[in-house]
Amino acid sequence: MNKTEKNPQASLIIIGNEILSGRTQDVNLAYLAAELNKVGVTLAEARVIPDVPDTIVETVNELRAKYDYVFTTGGIGPTHDDITSECIARAFGVDYELNAEAHAILLAHYKEGDLNEARLRMARMAKGAQLVENPISKAPGYRIDNVYVMAGVPMIMQGMFQSMKHLLDGGTPTQSRTIGAEVPEGRVAEGLGRVQEEFADVDVGSYPFYRGGVNGTNLVLRSTNEVQLEAATEAVRNILRDMGAVPHEGEFVKPADRKD
Amino acid sequence: MNKTEKNPQASLIIIGNEILSGRTQDVNLAYLAAELNKVGVTLAEARVIPDVPDTIVETVNELRAKYDYVFTTGGIGPTHDDITSECIARAFGVDYELNAEAHAILLAHYKEGDLNEARLRMARMAKGAQLVENPISKAPGYRIDNVYVMAGVPMIMQGMFQSMKHLLDGGTPTQSRTIGAEVPEGRVAEGLGRVQEEFADVDVGSYPFYRGGVNGTNLVLRSTNEVQLEAATEAVRNILRDMGAVPHEGEFVKPADRKD
Repeated sequence: MNKTEKNPQASLIIIGNEILSGRTQDVNLAYLAAELNKVGVTLAEARVIPDVPDTIVETVNELRAKYDYVFTTGGIGPTHDDITSECIARAFGVDYELNAEAHAILLAHYKEGDLNEARLRMARMAKGAQLVENPISKAPGYRIDNVYVMAGVPMIMQGMFQSMKHLLDGGTPTQSRTIGAEVPEGRVAEGLGRVQEEFADVDVGSYPFYRGGVNGTNLVLRSTNEVQLEAATEAVRNILRDMGAVPHEGEFVKPADRKD
Repeated sequence: MNKTEKNPQASLIIIGNEILSGRTQDVNLAYLAAELNKVGVTLAEARVIPDVPDTIVETVNELRAKYDYVFTTGGIGPTHDDITSECIARAFGVDYELNAEAHAILLAHYKEGDLNEARLRMARMAKGAQLVENPISKAPGYRIDNVYVMAGVPMIMQGMFQSMKHLLDGGTPTQSRTIGAEVPEGRVAEGLGRVQEEFADVDVGSYPFYRGGVNGTNLVLRSTNEVQLEAATEAVRNILRDMGAVPHEGEFVKPADRKD
C-alpha cells in the first residue's frame, strides 16, 4: 500500500526512444522521486513512452486529469525528434507558438548567427507556458497548468527541477529509515508482515541482496509520520535481535567495505 | 516515430514502491530493452507502479490487451509486499494457488524446516502458470498467456529472462549504429532531420552530451533494415564531414579517455 497517499500525487512521463531501446539508462525518475519526497509530493506512477505524437498527447491528457502534478522529461531540444512541446500544445488544445520570453533568452545566449531554425524550436511552446529557468544550457523548461516540462539530459533536468520546485504545493515530507541485516528475506518476512499490520501509516519494504556470498535483506520504512516511523523501525530492530541478528543502521554494507 | 513497429510489441510493468520512492534505481528496463532488440521484439512502453493491488490488476489487464507481450518485474518474493502473483491471478480471473511444480522446486532447494509459510508464497501463483527457471535463487518466474512474471532483483530477473526468451516469437532483430561528434546538437539538427526524412525505416536519434567542456552529440540510428541503416549512417557521417567535424564510430569518448 502507498502510505503517503494524503500528499499531492504526481506522475512522471519519460519521453524518448533512447530509454525504450536500452541505449540510455534513465536516472531522472530516481532523482525526481527523492526530490518530491522532500517537498511532500508522492510520485505515484511513471510511464516511459516513445517519440510518437499520439502516444505523448494521450498520455499527457490521461495523467494530467488523474494526478495533481505531471512531470515530463525529454524531447525539448532542437532536433526533429524533439516533439514534446508540439504534443503538449495539442494535449491542451492551444497554439504551438514562439514564446517571446524564451526567444529573448536564446537571443541573449547564442552568438549572432548561431540561433538557427533548429535551435529556435527550443523557444516554441504551448501558448500560456510559464517558463522555468535552465541554469545549465539556458533553453528553458516550462509549466502549463499542472504539467511541468523538463529536459531529458539529467544535469539540465535537475537544474530545471530546482528552478521550479517552489511552484509545487506539497504536503508533509516523507522520511525513511533503512535497517540492513545478514538475514535472508524469507526468515524475516513473517515478523515484518506483523510490523506492517501494526503500523498502518508506515510503508514497510523488504529488499534482498546478495553480496560476497551473503544473502541478506535491507528493510526500508517510509512515512510522513515520524513518531510511527521511529516506533516501527524499533520494532524491526527487535525482530532482528530476537533471531540473533545484528540490525545495521542504513543499507547493509559488508564490514570489509566500511569506511568507519 | 517508432520504426520497429512491425515487430511484436512489448510492454514492461515495473512493480514496486522502492522504484517510485527513489530508493532503488531500476536497471531492468534497459536490460530487457536491449535483450528484446536482439530477438526482434520492440519494447513500446514501460510503466512504474506502486504495490497497490487495484493498480497492478488494472495495469496488467490494460497492457496485456494492448501489447503482444507484457513483462513484469518485482513483487514475487516471500514478504507481505510481494503481491504481484495474487494480482496476476485476479487480473486473469483464475485461482491463486500453490503451484505443485514450484512447490517441489522449493522443497528441493531449502533445508528441512526452512521452507516456512513466507517462502511458500513464492510457490503460490495464478492457476495455469507455466514456470520459468530461476538459475540464481531457484524460486521460479512464470508465464501466463502473454504475461511474463519476473523477479525485481536484477541478477535474478536476468537469469529468468534468459530462461524464458525462447518462448518469445520475435521478428527481425533491431540493430543500431552510433556516431559521436564534437558538434553541438543545434548545429547538426537540420541535416539530421533530412536524414530522418530520407530513411523512413530508420529511427534517427540525437543525444547531446557535455563532457570536459565539450558540447557534443551522439547520433544513434536504429533499424531492422540493415541496408537502410548503413546508408543512413553514412549520410550522417557525411553531414558531419561537410561541417568540418570528425565522425567518431560509437559513443563519443574524449581522446584522452580512449584506450585505443
